Amino acid sequence: MIKILAELNMNNYEKVTENIYRELISICGEKFVIYRDPEKLEPFSHDEVTDKSYHHMPEAVVRPAGAQEIAAIMKLANKYKIPVTPRGGGSGLSLGAVPVFGGIVIFLDRMNRILEIDSKNMVITVEPGVITNEINEAASGIGLFFAGYPMSLQSCFIGGNVAENAGGGKAVKYGVTGRYILGMEFVTPEGEITCLGGKIVKNVTGYDLINLMTGSEGTLGIITKIYTKLMPKPTEITDLLVLFKNAEDAINMVPLIITESKIIPAAIEFIDRLSAHTSCRYLNEDIPYEKAGAMLLIEVDGTDKQKLEDDYEKIGSLCMKNGAIEVYVADNFTTQERIWNVRRNIAEAFMVISPEQSLEDITVPVAEIPKIIPELERLSAKYNIQIPCYGHAGDGNLHVTPVKNPAQTHEEWKNILPSVLEELYIETGKLGGVISGEHGIGYKRKKYLKYSLDDTAIDLMKRIKKSFDPNNILNPGKIFDL
Amino acid sequence: MIKILAELNMNNYEKVTENIYRELISICGEKFVIYRDPEKLEPFSHDEVTDKSYHHMPEAVVRPAGAQEIAAIMKLANKYKIPVTPRGGGSGLSLGAVPVFGGIVIFLDRMNRILEIDSKNMVITVEPGVITNEINEAASGIGLFFAGYPMSLQSCFIGGNVAENAGGGKAVKYGVTGRYILGMEFVTPEGEITCLGGKIVKNVTGYDLINLMTGSEGTLGIITKIYTKLMPKPTEITDLLVLFKNAEDAINMVPLIITESKIIPAAIEFIDRLSAHTSCRYLNEDIPYEKAGAMLLIEVDGTDKQKLEDDYEKIGSLCMKNGAIEVYVADNFTTQERIWNVRRNIAEAFMVISPEQSLEDITVPVAEIPKIIPELERLSAKYNIQIPCYGHAGDGNLHVTPVKNPAQTHEEWKNILPSVLEELYIETGKLGGVISGEHGIGYKRKKYLKYSLDDTAIDLMKRIKKSFDPNNILNPGKIFDL
Repeated sequence: MIKILAELNMNNYEKVTENIYRELISICGEKFVIYRDPEKLEPFSHDEVTDKSYHHMPEAVVRPAGAQEIAAIMKLANKYKIPVTPRGGGSGLSLGAVPVFGGIVIFLDRMNRILEIDSKNMVITVEPGVITNEINEAASGIGLFFAGYPMSLQSCFIGGNVAENAGGGKAVKYGVTGRYILGMEFVTPEGEITCLGGKIVKNVTGYDLINLMTGSEGTLGIITKIYTKLMPKPTEITDLLVLFKNAEDAINMVPLIITESKIIPAAIEFIDRLSAHTSCRYLNEDIPYEKAGAMLLIEVDGTDKQKLEDDYEKIGSLCMKNGAIEVYVADNFTTQERIWNVRRNIAEAFMVISPEQSLEDITVPVAEIPKIIPELERLSAKYNIQIPCYGHAGDGNLHVTPVKNPAQTHEEWKNILPSVLEELYIETGKLGGVISGEHGIGYKRKKYLKYSLDDTAIDLMKRIKKSFDPNNILNPGKIFDL
Repeated sequence: MIKILAELNMNNYEKVTENIYRELISICGEKFVIYRDPEKLEPFSHDEVTDKSYHHMPEAVVRPAGAQEIAAIMKLANKYKIPVTPRGGGSGLSLGAVPVFGGIVIFLDRMNRILEIDSKNMVITVEPGVITNEINEAASGIGLFFAGYPMSLQSCFIGGNVAENAGGGKAVKYGVTGRYILGMEFVTPEGEITCLGGKIVKNVTGYDLINLMTGSEGTLGIITKIYTKLMPKPTEITDLLVLFKNAEDAINMVPLIITESKIIPAAIEFIDRLSAHTSCRYLNEDIPYEKAGAMLLIEVDGTDKQKLEDDYEKIGSLCMKNGAIEVYVADNFTTQERIWNVRRNIAEAFMVISPEQSLEDITVPVAEIPKIIPELERLSAKYNIQIPCYGHAGDGNLHVTPVKNPAQTHEEWKNILPSVLEELYIETGKLGGVISGEHGIGYKRKKYLKYSLDDTAIDLMKRIKKSFDPNNILNPGKIFDL
């Protein structure tokens, strides 16, 4: 009877009392504090991880209007030793925004202003609660775009993207969120407000706290303002859908694309047979998926139509020379959306088969990807489950997703999943990879961190956490235990 | 009589005794320890900062063969409380490698092996003592290059580049060193060895210690192995030398290039009249500098000849439309070298006028660069000194260089320089800039850090330092005082 319990309160946190509730009201206003209302608190008990055993209710939710209010909340929380969990759009996949010790959730939805679009410096300054896609909509008007956006851009908050250092579909060429964060204001765990960087692209004044905060999963501070670099928006985009006989052929192609063609595509996505079939059936989509044992979705972009044509022809020929069955070119928005829709809906499609699944995001060196496929087949056979594999192959970042076999009981699944993940993570480590490329460790992967980091590295991270947050009240229980 | 003294020994460091010398020999071998030999120790008392009042002799220099030896040295140094200063190529410009408290210098010249060139993953693995240019020579053979290299690549060590997060000439398009560092092994101040990342391009397992180490100026650990991402080497390069009537016209052009043309050049360098004339005369170079009040050196690169021609014609026309006097195209290696030679020799040329100068590297938002020029003119007039200005304008990173007036005495110069720098840094801060974009804080700019960082940020950095290095023995006295 393995069962995941709510985190034990080893830190002797205090509860949010009626008195503290009144203090929260005096900081944020009555309208913006939720307390003793299970129905209103419930949405803050989980993120996109479906496993209910991970859910945990907060005692209070506050919706501050700005950094000053957050600073006051953190000072209050330190005084009474109440755990505080910051929350963005709630689209996380590692339980980073789930209050595993209860306490206060700081929901950043009201801090949703675009503060400035500076076209001369190509920088947009935003509050953390801005939905990421709104940045691209705002930038698009002046021919620019935020190149670091993740796949969930319609619902995620930019603050969460920064806190998780979110990846995304165009990371092959453009890198991930962190590359575009030039500055930020944040509130420290002890309630001080500080501001780093700004509209500058080079900065070596002291330690790189901006990159340290980026990806620290809300454990080192609450980000209240973000300076994001924008890039010239590509005017030409073409997608190639390349069909292969099997996963090995497709995956073997990935490292070749860049090293042989010397072209860096915006995206190289891998979709295995199982993922393609499941998503196409879910969408009633008739792209020629039946013919393919696996496919690559390759996006090239640029500002010159002719150059782009040359690029995709070069890549297409290279694929044909290396075992591709067929190369389809999607050079208009409608066809491109059809193809990307298949890719974007894979996770959703598998939810129909079983919501009991574990969406992973292991990362290995690109050239090692071919070695992971037989291992997935072995695990799939050993545990009698489906393990679709798709994702950002161009970065070596794969969404390996163990899905419960409908024939298995819930208990059986809960028994085997830790073993499946452990074997997967160990194999990933052997290939020089890590357990998370973009979703983060959070609460979900905490006990597996040792497969990616040695004791000394984990110890150094704990030292940083303790030095920033001596009372361990900001998002405790995430990444590691202190 | 302002005089800079050697750092006071507030930390009660111990001296390197005969006993400790023998212990160092037992770790590294007698051949690789220098002790009580002023002539051999002297080269380790300074970097490229010419001001002799900053120089400080080490008590011992050791040249370890690997991480294990460095770990043993750090354990020894902790036991006896001896300060340790790591040193790469010695080309630093902020005194980062200067042992301001004496003690032991760890010189990394023997750790100079290229460990692996992995063409499939496009990653080169090197020891810290590899001269940066050797990386490019090795990568060139397989059509790749290290895009983050700095201007001093012929002499600097890659370990120093990482420790300083060095910038460089191609940062506009390719970013600085840090973007290419995928993993590293390092020895902690307490003598533990840890390894982070590797050949993976996405990684969110725990805090981003790789970026924290990068640019930490050798104060948080000694880097012993580096995984560096390589990029496809551009096959086509063209440089434009664009002459303008005055600095304002040239500088006003900088933000326009990217925002109007939507092309991101590899480099946009600014050279003011004074710098151009001084360097051309020094080199006996007859490029048409006499006609120009200021010039931009714009490099575009790519893989397609036709596309590149279109790009530079677009940029050239844009410049002509915006006040350029003339645009010269350098599309072959010889001419390109001639032009870049002028840029690269500016610092050297001013050394002939006076070695008493202060090479700065302030960074401001690109669109704010025009506002810095009148301020330099004001300072130049107020203090009766020359202040040439040149550098990486495309990044907002300018080598403003106050040079002693030959008519001034040494004492006069030492009296006015702190005021010049203070006024420069305050103005930089007002424009949203920082005091260092690529050279680092080190010992030289420590007292000015407050002009770029608030108290809370500096306090957080100190907390990190203390938590990594409780005895404050690794490169003490740099960036800030504890």
